Amino acid sequence: MKLLRVGTAGAERPALLDAEGTLRDLSGTVTDIDGALLADTDALDRIRSAAGSGELPALDAAGLRVGPPVGRIGKVVCIGLNYHDHAKETGATPPAEPVIFFKAADTVVGPDDTVLVPRKSVKTDWEVELAIVIGRTARYLESDEEALAHIAGYAVSHDVSEREFQIERGGTWDKGKNCETFNPLGPWLVTTDEVPDPQALSLKLWVNGELKQDGTTAQQIFPVAEVVRYVSQFMTLYPGDVINTGTPAGVAMGHPEPKPYLRAGDVVELEIEGLGRQRQELKDA
Amino acid sequence: MKLLRVGTAGAERPALLDAEGTLRDLSGTVTDIDGALLADTDALDRIRSAAGSGELPALDAAGLRVGPPVGRIGKVVCIGLNYHDHAKETGATPPAEPVIFFKAADTVVGPDDTVLVPRKSVKTDWEVELAIVIGRTARYLESDEEALAHIAGYAVSHDVSEREFQIERGGTWDKGKNCETFNPLGPWLVTTDEVPDPQALSLKLWVNGELKQDGTTAQQIFPVAEVVRYVSQFMTLYPGDVINTGTPAGVAMGHPEPKPYLRAGDVVELEIEGLGRQRQELKDA
Repeated sequence: MKLLRVGTAGAERPALLDAEGTLRDLSGTVTDIDGALLADTDALDRIRSAAGSGELPALDAAGLRVGPPVGRIGKVVCIGLNYHDHAKETGATPPAEPVIFFKAADTVVGPDDTVLVPRKSVKTDWEVELAIVIGRTARYLESDEEALAHIAGYAVSHDVSEREFQIERGGTWDKGKNCETFNPLGPWLVTTDEVPDPQALSLKLWVNGELKQDGTTAQQIFPVAEVVRYVSQFMTLYPGDVINTGTPAGVAMGHPEPKPYLRAGDVVELEIEGLGRQRQELKDA
Repeated sequence: MKLLRVGTAGAERPALLDAEGTLRDLSGTVTDIDGALLADTDALDRIRSAAGSGELPALDAAGLRVGPPVGRIGKVVCIGLNYHDHAKETGATPPAEPVIFFKAADTVVGPDDTVLVPRKSVKTDWEVELAIVIGRTARYLESDEEALAHIAGYAVSHDVSEREFQIERGGTWDKGKNCETFNPLGPWLVTTDEVPDPQALSLKLWVNGELKQDGTTAQQIFPVAEVVRYVSQFMTLYPGDVINTGTPAGVAMGHPEPKPYLRAGDVVELEIEGLGRQRQELKDA
């Protein structure tokens, strides 16, 4: 299923994009798309059955804002340097085990919402990523199979990054990863049954219409099952938590000088095969 | 005021510790102690007035669990190496600007709750810290005065840390800071009017009755006003967000070998002048 949340920020209603591409209202079926729902297999079955019976009312998509596909996200765990080609372009050695950093859940916005260039930013950069959405509480998982069973679905994620804040201002990467609006997510949460192989997805990102990133999750150093298993050794993952699994090559930082960092007025578009498309306009904070 | 939340985990009720040391029930006055309450000066005035009039029912403290003093915490921002003596004991150069890392809000537990030693942990360490609780949305603050006006209050915080995960496993410090139960907070949120000088508070921590940390916030490299002002340049702080402001010297990592890292059965107690006392027993995860 393709689950989503539509409406004004903070007051989104749950919806479903059906097999014919029609937007269906889920607000009579469930209260929201959030961790509680994702952990509730009965509720998910109820949606599936309502969708199958054709009883869900259609929603007029025209002019409707799409929000993040998960509400009340607890935490956003991020994996750094998880593609061979991206590690190379940044001059880093491929990590021996996954690199973990964090984005605060309050950085998450809708897939087409405005992204703000922080004040005094000189190196705002883009990163298209495959996001994992957790469906079951995960502690000390032991196998890849177990890890996959704890995933509710996948989404497109934009891990916007300020490189000067991230790398040149002391401390951890978190300083350049948590500016307001720095994590557009969605449009959809696509449930795992519709993503038979998460390691065979193409990821693309354009800036002002020019293709900048063109990768595939086949290039991931640590595949999604390994990421979930690994992270669960260090922290507990709860339903509705999100893991951004890293970005392929092609970020601004990887370009020759002068590096094409983002400025107000730029438009970034992102797409992952089967997971939908995002479009953000940049503005000054 | 000393605000707190009592009852079973996830179902705490709001309470107040009055000037006579009597626990008072606030559940007839407000729904919870959370960001929404802290941003609502009318509600805070209502509590103050109810407390003054003596109309709040007393609560029997016997056997009552104390939860974290803030519910629905959005994010926990942490400042690293913020005391001269602690930077020295870890062998680090005092930072030129604040070091930022994150704890997930789901690591926050009550002040006397069990702390779990993670599986395969060999270096679980303690850190007593002064926590700032944000009261107003803070973006790009310009002065220390403005920063102080965005603080709702202060609390005792235990920034439990696994040093091998934090430092020796690649990536950022977050890997050793986010294990389950790794952030006991409370017992109280003490409002700013009762903390006239946040830079003159003594902090103490004992392990199995032995004093290990004995510092003062006067030793902070970046005082609380500077911390809030600085952090607000990189991210937006929301009511109910928490900032752990760093730890003084005396952590296990700073001891000569064999370093006395925590094990199941150890008891850690923490105290900050005027902000109350914590006591945790360690158990295996």
